[in-house]
This record gives sequence, C-alpha cells and structure tokens, in this order.
Amino acid sequence: MIKVELPLILINFKAYIEAYGSKAVELAKKAEKVAKEYGVCIAVAPQYVDIPKVAAEVEVPVFAQHIDPIGGGAWTGHVLAEAVKEAGASGTLINHSERRLLLADIEGAVARAREVGLFSVVCTNNPKVSAAAAAIDPWAIAVEPPELIGHGVAVSKAKPEVVSGTVDLVRKINSNVIVLCGAGIVEGQDVHAALKLGTQGVLLASGVVKAKDQEAVLRDLAQGALNALEKR
Amino acid sequence: MIKVELPLILINFKAYIEAYGSKAVELAKKAEKVAKEYGVCIAVAPQYVDIPKVAAEVEVPVFAQHIDPIGGGAWTGHVLAEAVKEAGASGTLINHSERRLLLADIEGAVARAREVGLFSVVCTNNPKVSAAAAAIDPWAIAVEPPELIGHGVAVSKAKPEVVSGTVDLVRKINSNVIVLCGAGIVEGQDVHAALKLGTQGVLLASGVVKAKDQEAVLRDLAQGALNALEKR
Amino acid sequence: MIKVELPLILINFKAYIEAYGSKAVELAKKAEKVAKEYGVCIAVAPQYVDIPKVAAEVEVPVFAQHIDPIGGGAWTGHVLAEAVKEAGASGTLINHSERRLLLADIEGAVARAREVGLFSVVCTNNPKVSAAAAAIDPWAIAVEPPELIGHGVAVSKAKPEVVSGTVDLVRKINSNVIVLCGAGIVEGQDVHAALKLGTQGVLLASGVVKAKDQEAVLRDLAQGALNALEKR
Amino acid sequence: MIKVELPLILINFKAYIEAYGSKAVELAKKAEKVAKEYGVCIAVAPQYVDIPKVAAEVEVPVFAQHIDPIGGGAWTGHVLAEAVKEAGASGTLINHSERRLLLADIEGAVARAREVGLFSVVCTNNPKVSAAAAAIDPWAIAVEPPELIGHGVAVSKAKPEVVSGTVDLVRKINSNVIVLCGAGIVEGQDVHAALKLGTQGVLLASGVVKAKDQEAVLRDLAQGALNALEKR
Repeated sequence: MIKVELPLILINFKAYIEAYGSKAVELAKKAEKVAKEYGVCIAVAPQYVDIPKVAAEVEVPVFAQHIDPIGGGAWTGHVLAEAVKEAGASGTLINHSERRLLLADIEGAVARAREVGLFSVVCTNNPKVSAAAAAIDPWAIAVEPPELIGHGVAVSKAKPEVVSGTVDLVRKINSNVIVLCGAGIVEGQDVHAALKLGTQGVLLASGVVKAKDQEAVLRDLAQGALNALEKR
Repeated sequence: MIKVELPLILINFKAYIEAYGSKAVELAKKAEKVAKEYGVCIAVAPQYVDIPKVAAEVEVPVFAQHIDPIGGGAWTGHVLAEAVKEAGASGTLINHSERRLLLADIEGAVARAREVGLFSVVCTNNPKVSAAAAAIDPWAIAVEPPELIGHGVAVSKAKPEVVSGTVDLVRKINSNVIVLCGAGIVEGQDVHAALKLGTQGVLLASGVVKAKDQEAVLRDLAQGALNALEKR
Repeated sequence: MIKVELPLILINFKAYIEAYGSKAVELAKKAEKVAKEYGVCIAVAPQYVDIPKVAAEVEVPVFAQHIDPIGGGAWTGHVLAEAVKEAGASGTLINHSERRLLLADIEGAVARAREVGLFSVVCTNNPKVSAAAAAIDPWAIAVEPPELIGHGVAVSKAKPEVVSGTVDLVRKINSNVIVLCGAGIVEGQDVHAALKLGTQGVLLASGVVKAKDQEAVLRDLAQGALNALEKR
Repeated sequence: MIKVELPLILINFKAYIEAYGSKAVELAKKAEKVAKEYGVCIAVAPQYVDIPKVAAEVEVPVFAQHIDPIGGGAWTGHVLAEAVKEAGASGTLINHSERRLLLADIEGAVARAREVGLFSVVCTNNPKVSAAAAAIDPWAIAVEPPELIGHGVAVSKAKPEVVSGTVDLVRKINSNVIVLCGAGIVEGQDVHAALKLGTQGVLLASGVVKAKDQEAVLRDLAQGALNALEKR
C-alpha cells in the first residue's frame, strides 16, 4: 500500500466506460508515472471490482468510491470496509454527490474507515455541510458544489468563496480535518488556485478520465500543485 | 399560532392509530389543558393531514414530523415548508430516526424551515452526529439513541452520558442551538433528569400516545419539568 | 366523498407554489365547476396538509400524492393510509416519478390503499414496468415517461407506442387494471389522443397548475375527453 | 467463466466476516469441490472486491450481490454491469431484501444484466411481488420471505404456500422465468422440498457461511438436490 501524501490529487474513475477493467489499470499507471516524475501524490478511485488489480499492479494509493456504515454481517450488496482494505485500498470516498448518505450513516462510515485504517474523504456541497462533516472527524472533506461537477469550470475559479468559506469553517470546527475541493477541475491552474485558497488537494474525475491525452492532463495538474507549493 | 417556549415537551404522534384524525385533536386538547394548568409548553406533532385541524382547534404549538428540503415546484409526494406553515404549524421535526435524511438534505430542510419561519428540531443519534447537526444551525437538536426509542427506559437514565456529551459538544460547536433529548421518556422523573443534564426539553411519543391515561402522563411530565426548573 | 368516474382527469398539484393552501382550494373549485359543466370527472391531488380543506369545501375527488406502505405505528414522517382516508381523500398516487418506491413497498402501499378504501394509481415509466405494476393489482396505473414530464409535449403524441404498448401489456397481465397516461398533457387534443389509445384518463400537473387561465385549460381538457367518448 | 446450470444452489456471502478476502476464495473452493463431486451447480456471490480473485482462482459461477441500473458514466459508488462482467462474474442478484431497489431500477438493472450477458436473479418477498418481477423478464426470481431470512427454518417447510404460490403466479405471467427460493435454507431436506415445490434451486447464505463445517453442509445441500432430481 502506497503512502497518501499532501497535497493530494485524487482521481475518481466513477462508472466511466473509459476507466474500468483493464482501462482502470492503464489509467492508474499513467497516474503512477506522473506522480513519480513530479513527486506529487496522485491517488485513484476505481470501481470496487477493479480495486484489487489496480492495487496489486500499480504503485498509487487506491480509494474506494464508497463504503457502507456496516460491520461484518447480513448486508447483501453492501461494501464492507474490511474487504475493501484487504483488497488493497488505502482510503475511501464517503457521501459523494452521486452517492449521498444519511447523516448517521456518514458518521458510521467514517468510524468504520477509522477502525480498519482507511483514509476517509467525506464529500460535501457547501461550507455549512462541510462544517457538519468536519464535526464527525473524518480524515478529510472534499467540498464540491454539485452544479459545477463535470462542467469544466473549476470551483476554485467559479466559486472561490465556497472553497475559502469551507476552509475557514472547517478550521473552526475541527482543525485536524484536511480540506480538498472538487467540481470542474480540469487543469493545473485550477489545482494551483485550490491550494492557494487553503485546500490541500483536489478531487476530480472527467477532467482526467475523459481527456484525449490523460497523461498530459495529469502532468498539468501535478505542475499546478508544484507551482502552488513553491510560492508558499 | 401559539408561542413555543422552553422548556419544551414535544409529543410526536407518529403514525399511531391512537393519534390520528379526531383522536389527534382529542390528544392535542389534553396537551393544551395540561399545558395551561402547569404553565409548561407542550407541543404536538401529528400526521401531516391532521395539522390544519389541530392547529385550528387547539391552542398548542403544532409541529410537522418532517419537511422536505425543497422549494415550490415539481416535487410530488414531498412536504412543502410553505404549505405546512400555512396549515398552522409552528415548527417541524427533521431527520427523525424513522425518517432519516441525507446530510445535504438536512441542511436544506433547516434552511427552508428558517425561510418560512418554522422552528426546526433536527433529530440525532449520538453526540458526534449532534455536533454535526449543530453546525448546520437549526433551532434545536433532539438526541435520541435509536435503540432506546419506544422501550420505556429513558435516555436520561439509561445513557446520561449521551445526553450530557451532546450538550457539551453542541455548546462548543454552536451555543445558539437548543438541546432536547428523547427515547424512552415516560414519566416526570425522566423529564426532570433530562433538564438537569442540560437539555431544554424532551421529545417523546409512545409514552404519552400509548398510555392508558394520557392526561395523567402529561401531568406527570409537566410536573417533572416544573420540579427541575424550581431547583435551578 | 365524491365518486371517482371514468374517464378521469387527475390534476396533481405537486409542491407548486401556485397550488397550495388557499390556492389549492381555489384551483379545486375551478376543477369542480368545469367537471359539473362538462359531466367529466376531474380529481385533484394537493399537498397532504391541504387534503382536509379541499375535501371539505369542494365537490371533487381528492387524491393524496403518496401513502406509505405502513400500518399504524412508530413511523414518524410517514403517511398513514387511514389518516389520509379520514381527512377526506378518495384515492392516492403511488410511486410517482418524483417519489419512487421500492417494489415491495409499492405492493405494500397498494394493499394498504385497498384495505382502507382508497383508489390506488401506481405511476410507471414504461410498458414493462407498467406490466409489473399491474401484477400487483392496483386500481389503476398511470404510465408517464419521466423525460416528457413538465415539457409540454404530450406522451400521447410524442410516444404513442409507450401508451398503446402499456395498454396491451396491462390487459394481458391483469385486465381489471385501469390505464391512465401522463407527461406533457396540456390540452384537449392530448386527452383525446390518450383515450383513443385505449387509456381511461390522464394524469397531469403543470399543464393546468401553471396555466395563465387554469379554468380555460380545464375546459379544453374536459372537451377533449367528451370528443373522444362521442366517437367511441 | 463457468456454466450456470439447474438446479442451482446459490451461496450469498453477504458482508459476512467469515466470507470475504482470502476466506471468500477458500469457501468458493469448497463449493467447487462439492459441485464437482456431486455434479450439482453451486454458485457463489462474494463481496464486489472479491469477485476477480474468486473468478480467477475457482471454477464456480460467480454472482455479484447487486448491480446498479446505470450505463457507463458519472455514477460514483455505483456498480457498473460491464465492470462486474469483466471481473469474471456470470450473474448478479438484484433487489435482495437487504438491498431493495425502486421498481423502475429493478427493470433497469435487469436490462443492464441482459445487455452485458449476466444472469439476473431478482429477489422478491411474496407471490404478488414475484409476479411483478417476472413481468420484467429477468433470468430468475428468488422468493424469500424476509422474516425467515437467517433464522434456520426453511421457507420450503415454514411457508410452502409462498413457494408454490410464487411458482404458479410466475408461470402464468412469464413461464420463461426460473423460480428459486430462499430464507432459512440450512440442509439438504430444505433443498429437496424446494425443488419438489416447483423451484429450480435455492439461494442461501448463513446456512453455509456460518456453518462449523461448511463443506459438510454443502454436501448435504447437493445431496438434497440430487435426491429431488432422482424422484422426478
């Protein structure tokens, strides 16, 4: 299992046709290559069934896209934290806007992730909800205004106040919690802006997965992160 | 519309056969009578369809059991805050353990309640989730360990640390938020204990609704509240 | 309670700002007036809290927009069939595309409607799902391709094969079940086409609720129904 | 990929601690061994992340516990049929009582399974719901009264009328659909009874997974199937 480091560029493969099965492994290998070249941590979140192969064949941190707030037992069709961990995952998204959870279940899923040693990234939609999520004490939150997801205009440009407002509120509530941001991230400038607003990384999907030249985009994102770090 | 005052005894009629239709009005009248005798605020939360009649015929604050995080529009089968308000409600429960919501929807429903002037009571299951709910800035939270609901052993006796832990965490996160507690409340002693632990009221259901002598239980609860206030 | 007759024009008020509270009563009165003038059954489905007032003040059949598959008990925020019935409703929608239910819960809700004497209208999205719903033995199904809802192009024009395909499949599975159709219905021609395709009524919402002249639209719809009947 | 044959004994690993990761492979190997000895088809349904390893290392048909009714796209945390298929699965459960789906989503998931070539087994709770599911045209339905799941009293003994009623109704609606039954199956006698009632297999979980001697139970189940076949 590969170390998760900050700043973090986390690529969500969703259920994209371009990023499951053997294509999941290929894309993860591009992430690995760029991560090594630039010294920037790039993690990937493939389909559940692709976690074992990606984790076995590629040196990048692997995240599940979701885990359930359950312990072992009679939970057909649910995702058991222990199974995800044994399959090679380092962490998990929780409450992505495409897989929202009940509040009590977010708390339960974060607790399960902690118990088995998975990094938990709770996705949120605005500063107030981010504050609520921070009170639950996950490893990180990732604020993503749903209306910007997949549209190619980065949250860090379109709604910088959502990002900085989240950073401020989360610091007040629970300063241990890392803040990422997502929605519309497609290039290095977006990562740069996100880090300048006080986040420690980005969560993105289509910007990389759907790119004609996935490796070029990954390079640009990594360079954006480096640029932001240098100026700190 | 009747004023909501603290301490608050809030009676949830759920979908109990003993408390819908004309029986909802009767039970609300018992609450009104006892509230006036003791000078303690007793509110009721009947079925949606019973809100107008209870609000029109009885002088007690009426709560909805749930509202949806929606504005006016194409939302068949959803509960519009404006409609609940116009029907005569003073407030609403949100996220009861029998009607859990997504985190983002809790935030949305609390915002809608505020916009139309409804008191919002967000139900929670433990201190951490209560802290998260408090970050969302509702009027009140009501902590209720689900395993104690309907079992006749009061949370204020069985798990006082859940109640006091919630009071402490909520005060840290957002001291404007009122804390109620529920689950297993059946007698005045339970109300007394709850208020002594720092709450400002209780939420209960079967303890009153299913009682042989509903009025006697209401009196006992009101007396419990008075006893706690006197000793403050 | 007013008799439900065929063909049926069922107006869903959803959570529209134009159709709750006193506006729900006003719109229902327009439906009553037109229904009496034309001798065509027009039913209305307002917000839950508006059911009692509409049922008390207007002579039209009133439908709930949803009921839950529950008996009396500890179901906070759920809609009890008995309460809806006592409030004056004649029937209920079930599984509207904006309030989809689990399959087992559709069966449960239809059973509850039957037990308390409510007409059940199960909404469906295509012929196969309509066939499945018919197997559950509701009073009626209403097929509505979700992509056409609220867009002003009637299903009976845009996708007549969905309507006739549903009529055929439902007849094979369970010929007792009435077929309605909805989505995009805005004028008398749409009703006419729907009845000619073998349905016994229509379900619509914005076409009436959002109309500048609601009464004129209601008249046009009723006339469309009459025209179709005359030519039978 | 191994052929799925009838009668079918389908073992659901759920999220049991005894059946994930390396233990999933071990249990699947016991199923393989017994299946070969007895010439009876035994399939397994492990956690999503365990599908690739089980499918690669063991010669038994592998089922997913659930797939989502989605095509490739922006569906974080959802299960893509194509990914499950490429990982080596032969089929999938849909709508298990622990993972119920909306009616429209059952239809969608069955369609997706068909498109990618996965056997679909739609779980149901009673004859009427089974009839509805059959109208959707899955490969099989598996009727399981939820109150009997995990309790060690077989549906084929405790409620034979549920099984035979389902067989009858499903035959009427869609005679192409295979009927399995589940809930409480723990021994060969239960399989025997199930097949005699007209089913073509069983779905079970704890009876095998939680058994002290898993292989002995698998042998007993396989023998029960053989006994029923001989007497046909």
